[in-house]
Amino acid sequence: MFKINDNYLKLPGSYLFSTIAKKVTAYKESNPNNKVISLGIGDVTQPLAPAIIEAMHKAVDEMADASTFRGYAPDLGYEFLRRAIADNDYKSRGVELALDEIFISDGAKSDSGNIVDIFAQNNKIAVTDPVYPVYVDSNAMAGKTGDYLKDRECWSNVVYMPCTAENNFVPELPSDTPDIIYICCPNNPTGTALKKSDLQKWVDYANEKKAVIIYDAAYEAYISEEDVPHSIYECEGAKTCAIEMRSFSKNAGFTGTRLGFTVIPKELTCDGTSLNGLWARRHGTKFNGAPYIIQRAGEAVYSKEGREQTGKQIAYYMNNAKEIRNALEGMGYTVFGGVNAPYIWLKTPDGMKSWDFFDVLLEKANVVGTPGSGFGPSGEGYFRLTAFGSAESTKEALERIKKL
Amino acid sequence: MFKINDNYLKLPGSYLFSTIAKKVTAYKESNPNNKVISLGIGDVTQPLAPAIIEAMHKAVDEMADASTFRGYAPDLGYEFLRRAIADNDYKSRGVELALDEIFISDGAKSDSGNIVDIFAQNNKIAVTDPVYPVYVDSNAMAGKTGDYLKDRECWSNVVYMPCTAENNFVPELPSDTPDIIYICCPNNPTGTALKKSDLQKWVDYANEKKAVIIYDAAYEAYISEEDVPHSIYECEGAKTCAIEMRSFSKNAGFTGTRLGFTVIPKELTCDGTSLNGLWARRHGTKFNGAPYIIQRAGEAVYSKEGREQTGKQIAYYMNNAKEIRNALEGMGYTVFGGVNAPYIWLKTPDGMKSWDFFDVLLEKANVVGTPGSGFGPSGEGYFRLTAFGSAESTKEALERIKKL
Repeated sequence: MFKINDNYLKLPGSYLFSTIAKKVTAYKESNPNNKVISLGIGDVTQPLAPAIIEAMHKAVDEMADASTFRGYAPDLGYEFLRRAIADNDYKSRGVELALDEIFISDGAKSDSGNIVDIFAQNNKIAVTDPVYPVYVDSNAMAGKTGDYLKDRECWSNVVYMPCTAENNFVPELPSDTPDIIYICCPNNPTGTALKKSDLQKWVDYANEKKAVIIYDAAYEAYISEEDVPHSIYECEGAKTCAIEMRSFSKNAGFTGTRLGFTVIPKELTCDGTSLNGLWARRHGTKFNGAPYIIQRAGEAVYSKEGREQTGKQIAYYMNNAKEIRNALEGMGYTVFGGVNAPYIWLKTPDGMKSWDFFDVLLEKANVVGTPGSGFGPSGEGYFRLTAFGSAESTKEALERIKKL
Repeated sequence: MFKINDNYLKLPGSYLFSTIAKKVTAYKESNPNNKVISLGIGDVTQPLAPAIIEAMHKAVDEMADASTFRGYAPDLGYEFLRRAIADNDYKSRGVELALDEIFISDGAKSDSGNIVDIFAQNNKIAVTDPVYPVYVDSNAMAGKTGDYLKDRECWSNVVYMPCTAENNFVPELPSDTPDIIYICCPNNPTGTALKKSDLQKWVDYANEKKAVIIYDAAYEAYISEEDVPHSIYECEGAKTCAIEMRSFSKNAGFTGTRLGFTVIPKELTCDGTSLNGLWARRHGTKFNGAPYIIQRAGEAVYSKEGREQTGKQIAYYMNNAKEIRNALEGMGYTVFGGVNAPYIWLKTPDGMKSWDFFDVLLEKANVVGTPGSGFGPSGEGYFRLTAFGSAESTKEALERIKKL
């Protein structure tokens, strides 16, 4: 008789954004005349840049002709894309990577969920709190997080590192030593970022404790301040302790186009075994690459035109972020983030519970945000708004919130 | 200190097709003037059909305009595609599926590797032998297969069900009861297929033993005989014991375009828990969907033009299969498959080892095939050729083999 993985049954509720989607759908069905504006899930709204569109049309045409048709992609992804990444994202910042240290995938969500596969059962993970839910949920599914403590809304075998206004959203080195440390910088959901000197402390700590850092840099393109690193490999010693993940979703609008990559330096080893080799084996066995057409789209992001065009989109979203910050501050809200990331993290008014504020915002202002507590216990009393709406709908949402 | 998943270290060598690719690359580098023909990896060579190309251009244009731009896809995939699948692949054959029993993915390889996640550690798997390597390797990576017995080239905790000329490639019900049974029909690598009455026996067996069948129907479009089922759900009782996986790679040439789907009926439960819900949770947490453009391409496969055009491609490949069969039989080879599948499974001459025959074919005829032993111990002494080449190169490959 077959047995299911009952770690799944320990998971509280459904995936955060699925829950929100269901709530919003139900509200819309009951209130078909109310126009709901979403500043909730971090989904982009600007169309793909012309250089990307052009590259995709060209690639589609190549697929129509036997002489240029492409079947299975190379295991690690096409070299043209890995080279563009190595040159533009890394070499330009003083980081040298071999092309086989870069693995192309269908997105950072898949990679950050699947990376769990290459680690043993008995690793203790540490996460910032609040945190992007995939890190914890994927470990919970693999039975690595202990029991779910319903009253405290956390897992018994996870090191939570609170990031709140009190510590200026900089996690403190934990007293309970973890084996795997998840850091998302610039941070989702708080929209804050670590300075290079703060991140260097974590790299030194990981090397000292022989821990590995899973570094999610999906929002790297939004960094505006000089002393915030774009890659963890800008820190000394990071190649022996860090895996870095990136996405094309937010820097080029690929949420529905799907492309990302993971960097695993060959120096990152455990008892002589390179994690690069383990991930290569997983990639080769359980994945068949991102579509050729999409990899060409990714390459176009790095072209001169692509960089200019996507740069304008990022500036557009960051202008939304500024508008949200300014407007909310003007209304008396306490607001964080929005300077190096497209997320605004606000304190709910009068210590209201996060989900209560979600309901108020949905029902009274028809605006969707994300409740802070959905990202972890220390997110309670906070709320996330994204800058990914159109300028018009963002403005309208702010006017509605003002009237609350 | 972090620990790696050392189940990976038990895996023998690298993924089969990665090994072959490396061997072929090395040969080509040493012999740059020899034109190598690949009838090895099951990769298609015909370009995408015009209806698919047209649909992708249209979808690319939609991504260029804010009013038609698409971000994150629905968790299960777009309804337009799931509806096309339900109507065309299932309803037309008397199988009723709810749309939320169909999960769109980036391919059957990913799904067949990732499905391991939702099952407990202590399940015993059964596989036909020879077998598509992903089923066993993905279970081995999860530590579910026991130890690798090097001398016998098999795993200690896997039920192998030999499929050879002796039993006409129909696996016998095993004496050692498994919990999870992998069946690929039409079969990769043998190119043979089970009759409906044979498959019904497996469905009855699984229901009796409360085992689950992972049914890989990636080659369904190649079925030419009346009594071979296109879906396992054509068998009575299959909805309570079977998961079905399909791919667009072989029926529509999507090996480099990436699209597939998995069906999990809600009736398939374990102690009251629906596997559909578990897979939905995995899908929602560790995956972000196939690209919108590619899902539109998949929809086009089911259009009137798409069906006609892809039907012609399948006929083209199956004509290759016929040519390979006839030519090899004319040379005195013993040959199987190629009637309901694009694979020809031949006995190596004079009982030669599979890898030795691989080397002879590569070095003397400059033809790449796949050694039968790479698919499992009972594949030793066999060899796989695919019908996915062009008609011209297939013909040339056969002439070269004739001269051996």
